[in-house]
Amino acid sequence: MAIVLGPNQYGKAEVRVVAVDRSTPRHTLVDLNVSSALRGDFSAAHLTGDNAHVLTTDAQKNTVFAFARDGVASPEAFALRLATHFAGSYPWISGARVAVESYGWDRIAVDGAPHDHAFRRAGGEVRTAVVTADDGDLHVVAGLTDLVVLKTTGSEFWGFPRDAYTTLKETRDRILATAVTARWRYTGTGLDWHTTYDTVRTTMLEAFASTHSLALQQTLHAMGAAVLETVPEVAEVRLSMPNKHHFLQDLSAFGLDNPDVVYHADDRPYGLIEGTVLRDDVPAAEVAWQGTPGFV
Amino acid sequence: MAIVLGPNQYGKAEVRVVAVDRSTPRHTLVDLNVSSALRGDFSAAHLTGDNAHVLTTDAQKNTVFAFARDGVASPEAFALRLATHFAGSYPWISGARVAVESYGWDRIAVDGAPHDHAFRRAGGEVRTAVVTADDGDLHVVAGLTDLVVLKTTGSEFWGFPRDAYTTLKETRDRILATAVTARWRYTGTGLDWHTTYDTVRTTMLEAFASTHSLALQQTLHAMGAAVLETVPEVAEVRLSMPNKHHFLQDLSAFGLDNPDVVYHADDRPYGLIEGTVLRDDVPAAEVAWQGTPGFV
Amino acid sequence: MAIVLGPNQYGKAEVRVVAVDRSTPRHTLVDLNVSSALRGDFSAAHLTGDNAHVLTTDAQKNTVFAFARDGVASPEAFALRLATHFAGSYPWISGARVAVESYGWDRIAVDGAPHDHAFRRAGGEVRTAVVTADDGDLHVVAGLTDLVVLKTTGSEFWGFPRDAYTTLKETRDRILATAVTARWRYTGTGLDWHTTYDTVRTTMLEAFASTHSLALQQTLHAMGAAVLETVPEVAEVRLSMPNKHHFLQDLSAFGLDNPDVVYHADDRPYGLIEGTVLRDDVPAAEVAWQGTPGFV
Amino acid sequence: MAIVLGPNQYGKAEVRVVAVDRSTPRHTLVDLNVSSALRGDFSAAHLTGDNAHVLTTDAQKNTVFAFARDGVASPEAFALRLATHFAGSYPWISGARVAVESYGWDRIAVDGAPHDHAFRRAGGEVRTAVVTADDGDLHVVAGLTDLVVLKTTGSEFWGFPRDAYTTLKETRDRILATAVTARWRYTGTGLDWHTTYDTVRTTMLEAFASTHSLALQQTLHAMGAAVLETVPEVAEVRLSMPNKHHFLQDLSAFGLDNPDVVYHADDRPYGLIEGTVLRDDVPAAEVAWQGTPGFV
Repeated sequence: MAIVLGPNQYGKAEVRVVAVDRSTPRHTLVDLNVSSALRGDFSAAHLTGDNAHVLTTDAQKNTVFAFARDGVASPEAFALRLATHFAGSYPWISGARVAVESYGWDRIAVDGAPHDHAFRRAGGEVRTAVVTADDGDLHVVAGLTDLVVLKTTGSEFWGFPRDAYTTLKETRDRILATAVTARWRYTGTGLDWHTTYDTVRTTMLEAFASTHSLALQQTLHAMGAAVLETVPEVAEVRLSMPNKHHFLQDLSAFGLDNPDVVYHADDRPYGLIEGTVLRDDVPAAEVAWQGTPGFV
Repeated sequence: MAIVLGPNQYGKAEVRVVAVDRSTPRHTLVDLNVSSALRGDFSAAHLTGDNAHVLTTDAQKNTVFAFARDGVASPEAFALRLATHFAGSYPWISGARVAVESYGWDRIAVDGAPHDHAFRRAGGEVRTAVVTADDGDLHVVAGLTDLVVLKTTGSEFWGFPRDAYTTLKETRDRILATAVTARWRYTGTGLDWHTTYDTVRTTMLEAFASTHSLALQQTLHAMGAAVLETVPEVAEVRLSMPNKHHFLQDLSAFGLDNPDVVYHADDRPYGLIEGTVLRDDVPAAEVAWQGTPGFV
Repeated sequence: MAIVLGPNQYGKAEVRVVAVDRSTPRHTLVDLNVSSALRGDFSAAHLTGDNAHVLTTDAQKNTVFAFARDGVASPEAFALRLATHFAGSYPWISGARVAVESYGWDRIAVDGAPHDHAFRRAGGEVRTAVVTADDGDLHVVAGLTDLVVLKTTGSEFWGFPRDAYTTLKETRDRILATAVTARWRYTGTGLDWHTTYDTVRTTMLEAFASTHSLALQQTLHAMGAAVLETVPEVAEVRLSMPNKHHFLQDLSAFGLDNPDVVYHADDRPYGLIEGTVLRDDVPAAEVAWQGTPGFV
Repeated sequence: MAIVLGPNQYGKAEVRVVAVDRSTPRHTLVDLNVSSALRGDFSAAHLTGDNAHVLTTDAQKNTVFAFARDGVASPEAFALRLATHFAGSYPWISGARVAVESYGWDRIAVDGAPHDHAFRRAGGEVRTAVVTADDGDLHVVAGLTDLVVLKTTGSEFWGFPRDAYTTLKETRDRILATAVTARWRYTGTGLDWHTTYDTVRTTMLEAFASTHSLALQQTLHAMGAAVLETVPEVAEVRLSMPNKHHFLQDLSAFGLDNPDVVYHADDRPYGLIEGTVLRDDVPAAEVAWQGTPGFV
């Protein structure tokens, strides 16, 4: 038996770069959180502390800032440029993973007109992109997190098996609420990233709203399938959707009925539904997901 | 010398009540986080554990849910109703403080039309209301937190004194960013709460955008003064505004200039500017602010 | 009517300074989060953006680092030195508030012996100190936050009034759990800060453990009173103690009893008990508490 | 091309169960956060909303509480019991993953003696256990998170390559600080879980303290290898260690030197070093890691 070094990576996490385009009086703004990680032969650093192969995480950070000088077209494009650069920087670096979070800003309206250089952070979901360079291949996984949605009706839950620990009542009408984390893998690397992102996001929202839900699993699948049907460049969609329980409050002790009016929003525990929807004719690419949280 | 009990209060914090109005097919939704606290004579509980005066925090929670059965017109109106109830519930209860956070939900658009019963959490700022009942008086403090705003130009900072520890360079053009927490006290208890809130919020946003800033203090004052000028029912405005520093990144080591393009958004430390703007002809009401975080 | 500037302050928040004493091979470490705020005449900055009175927050940060070069004897001593300096730096500065959080580090044991220069962050509570300089006076408020404590028995709750919304059952035995935030004001400025802090902390823990509790209010009062009885230099103690509910889980549906064995720890809502215990012969000093969260 | 359902799982997350043993006057306490997830054939729920295969997440929660009635011997043993139960509950359920976080409590000392029923939450790291049942196999991965450690000396960093974006200076003496997340896979399912956990934890702490570090990678590898050398039942160790940068503050502008005394602790960005150390003669078991965050 020997003790050996297994898979490893290292990089700089959470570089908070903000790039402003002031080329016209109508400024624009890109607000990113960039994390990079390098893969390759770093055995010497682990075994003897020899850093000859270690492109420093400080240099990775510097590269993010330097590349932003040329503008950040989109999270996906910026991550592609960085990952390609890192993976090609030294012969012992075989791959790189660049993950980007992007925060939206809306223009503040003054007298009804959008302001040229004053903005309000959009709140709501965070747009994400992960690009993996791996032995010459490039993989793009786009996504979003914290898209919180809720339906006040159009959700049922019944017909489940009843084991010795099942006490839940069936319901034909409940609040359905979740915070969507979605990630989808593209088959190409040269898409119109903004347009495609918007299409995927809109498709998921519409599917959530329009699906009469008999199970959160059904809603999840409908959202993923709708994306695949709408956007041919998407190979697979992975979704993680907590069931943010809203329990109808029992008011009978106070002489009150409660016909689906008053609910208690609970924090913990919560259901957690996770699943993948994919095309059966696209090759898998597990390396594209390596290092990204999620169950598969 | 004797050891005595000083000021005290107790209550139930963070009751997460969601109230749905399904009276028409076009549902509406109110999503609140309600905290109540009672003031009065609770000496026996402190000194001997005699709870005869202690209206339980569990009952306070129940009251929140029961009152929501009739609908929640607005955070301010709901807090007024609760505070009035609690303060009048037993002779030894002399006052009550009810604080409400309200989370916004937008309708999801399906094929361009707002959906009847599917919503997306709005994100961005949280609307707040604090009502204090105190010996028969009622005070309403409305507010918002986490309104994150940024200007890419129109902000200078120079002319400050230079002590032995001052190394900061003057600037005629910088990014100005902050997360506004604002609270304003109304002189009345019967306003059109939604409309007034919207007016205050819009006024602050427009003042932030329109003020050419020589100091964040100046921006803060302009925002508060604009509210007082626009809304006669507001007696005072208290603002807490962190200076969320965006530092221009030095790219010269890489042969690059940086003409106000690439910034690093820092987390800590941050400047913190806090101030009050008020009418000089309205009586003070410190009790309205008791228990609300803030420097005054 | 005129619109006027009211109370205001500004400063630098959350300067994360770590000071190491390497004067002997047995290193020591102080790990602080320092926030400063200045009070005085800053009207011009608010009204016209004239910064002639604005000692920059950047300079305040620099001062924290520079002063740490001489060593940080204790949070209280360091805050006293900084507040005195800031309040005396310019004639228009009438006061300063310096707040310090201190994080503990324990030595890592190697073969049973504490290591000279390797440490583990202690976790648990954070030690706090707030010094306020105000027109020549100095006030010291020490404290701690997030001291989470629990009793598995020795806690009752009964004898409370029952209004129309009271459904809670009385109990003669429950889990009592809370996360203590305590702040206490000293009458002097030259104490043995470490020893006194340790005494106060130990006294509170012992009072929590030893008090047979009929109400969380009673426990709170017992903790505060014990501090005042033990440490003559403490003028008043302010405590904020959430009631972290542990609900006995009903297992009867599964044919199981539950004799105080299985509990569910709930997040929200929670009770919140806040109170002050003080000596009746010490003058009040509200300015010492200005800007510190808490209900009084 | 067809759109198909890929890997999926569902369950109840973050059941906060506290179990008290009051069988003697010296009480003990187990404080857990339990998450379960089921794997198997849940196609019908996804495709048509047919829940006949969906053992509800509510029932999973009930099972956690019911099983706690018999006592929770250790996180690993409790997770093994739950995973075995869930995986065997219905023919269509092929596997289960049960993840447990365990929070430590120390006895409060009163007059120097540990109290029988009063406790203080230990703070510091969280102990974790993940058990995966998969087609009859059982896998146990133990771990810890948020073990924050720091060395004031005994850390160097030099000899790294210098590309066009490298500006970092070499150092022969720096602060090394990290928050360790470690997970290790056992080869057996019947170990003495508490003793083994303590041994692994102590071994890692001693390795961190004792390793003169030329790279954080080297420290990571030394910690993992030490565990494998000390505990034969451990097959592999996966470590994620952020480099929590402490930057020496430049005080020269104030006429001060800074001989490794005053540091600024930065939040973001941070280095992130992740790696695996394993035995080369133990079969891999990727399913044991499925759903656990981490890069491999």
